[in-house]
Parts: sequence; structure tokens; C-alpha cells
Amino acid sequence: MRRTRFDQWPCPIARTTDLIGDWWTPLVMRQAFLGCRRFDQFQESLGVSRAVLTTRLNRLVEEGMLTRHLYQQHPPRHEYRLTDKGRGFWMVLAAMWRWGQDWLPDDDDPELVDRDTGERVVPLVVDEATGAPLDVRRLRLGSAAR
Amino acid sequence: MRRTRFDQWPCPIARTTDLIGDWWTPLVMRQAFLGCRRFDQFQESLGVSRAVLTTRLNRLVEEGMLTRHLYQQHPPRHEYRLTDKGRGFWMVLAAMWRWGQDWLPDDDDPELVDRDTGERVVPLVVDEATGAPLDVRRLRLGSAAR
Repeated sequence: MRRTRFDQWPCPIARTTDLIGDWWTPLVMRQAFLGCRRFDQFQESLGVSRAVLTTRLNRLVEEGMLTRHLYQQHPPRHEYRLTDKGRGFWMVLAAMWRWGQDWLPDDDDPELVDRDTGERVVPLVVDEATGAPLDVRRLRLGSAAR
Repeated sequence: MRRTRFDQWPCPIARTTDLIGDWWTPLVMRQAFLGCRRFDQFQESLGVSRAVLTTRLNRLVEEGMLTRHLYQQHPPRHEYRLTDKGRGFWMVLAAMWRWGQDWLPDDDDPELVDRDTGERVVPLVVDEATGAPLDVRRLRLGSAAR
């Protein structure tokens, strides 16, 4: 049964839900950020079925989040690389990371670490213009005063 | 068919995926942030079936993201209120909003506006310690040097 589609709703949260709501998709993207490129790397690291993984990768290619490149001719083998759109999705995973760490904690989790400084990195969502953490009680939907 | 569960995986992204991957759940949370409290408000604003909405609200209560309060005795009627854990989830929706706005744009979308200043608000994910936008290429998983 195909579920309800949200990809045409006039809300960016709804359209993003349409993508994220495909089982496994956020984890496939996580693996792409961790350096997976080949089908077997995704498959072995996640333990997902080949059929589901194929569907997920195909949709991510269709959506322009990954591109498929031939890296071997005989037999033909492809690898998957992040596009700018796919790389931008890190923002969503980072917010999921932060919230999951705060509210669904598990002592076995690794940390996010800055390669250069060795410091722990903790994602936070702010207002781009002011740098202040977002306070949802101060927000409304509408048109800005500009 | 029950899908694969991610709620015990040692990764905050995986555990958050387990929640978000329930169809409709991010949209039910969005409506809670927009002020929905009663079952019928959620149901009418989303056009979701009552059965699916009941399942989603029950899970959000179980997970401690919403609490259920009796607001009428005869017949008994409940409303749903955000907890701190639920309110914290705004961070995830905000990142979805930003990415969806950038990469799945639609001219009909409303804007996020600050109630006090009337200014448009654009969510951005930064490193809490430095305020710098997250650059995923600088991140690794591991233990911090501390």
C-alpha cells in the first residue's frame, strides 16, 4: 500500500517528510556522509535488504541528492556521490542527532568531533540573521514585514 | 507489515528516524507547534484518518512528547500538550523547514516570522560552542579529545 504523499504540500516540513518518511532514507544519507559510496558498502553497513536499498538509492538519485557514477565497466559498477542538495541534508541529520542525543540518550553513542580541533561538536539550530537559538514560541507563519 | 525498528540503534539519528518514519508524525508535531490541542483540530487541519491520527498521538504520548489532559468530563474529551521533549523537537522541524525551503522550494509557502520584530526567521544549524555553521566535511564520529 502506497502511503499518503506530502511532496506537493505547501509546507517545506511536509515535503521533507515525504522523503524522510521512506524507511531507511535518513540512514542511507548518514552512511553517505560517513563515506559510503558503493552499493555493497551501504548494504553491509546497514544490514538493509538489497531490494529496499535499491529503491532508496534510486529515489535519492531521482531527487538529485545523490548522483550515480560508473566506476567499473566489466561488469558495470556504480558508486553514489552526494550532490550539493544531498550535502545540504546534513542540516536535517544534525538536528536529528542533537535532539536524539538530548532526548533519546544512549551511552554507547559516538560523539561528533571536529577533525581539526578534536573538540566535540554539538549541533544547535539558530536564527541565521541573529545567531540566537530559535524560540518556537516567538515564531508565527505568515509574511515578513519587509 | 511492521517495518524495521531503529529505536535501539546506537545512533541518535537512527533513533529519531524511528519516530519520524511513522507517516504523519512530523506533521502532527508541526500542528502541535501551530497551536492544535484537540483531536478534531489535528484531524481537520491535516485531513488524516482518525485511525492513523489515534496511533500517532498515542505514540507521541508514550514517547513523552505530548501529554494528554482531560478538558471535559461528559463526554470525556482530552487535549494534547507539548512537553519539553516535544518542544525540543522543533529543532528537527526547523532544520527540515530550512532544507525543504532551499531544495524543494514552492512559492506558496508561508515564511517563519518573529512575532516581536516582524522579521523573517531562517533556521541555520551551527556548532553550539563556536556559532559557526556546521561543515560536515570537518566532522568525524568518535570521542572528543577532552
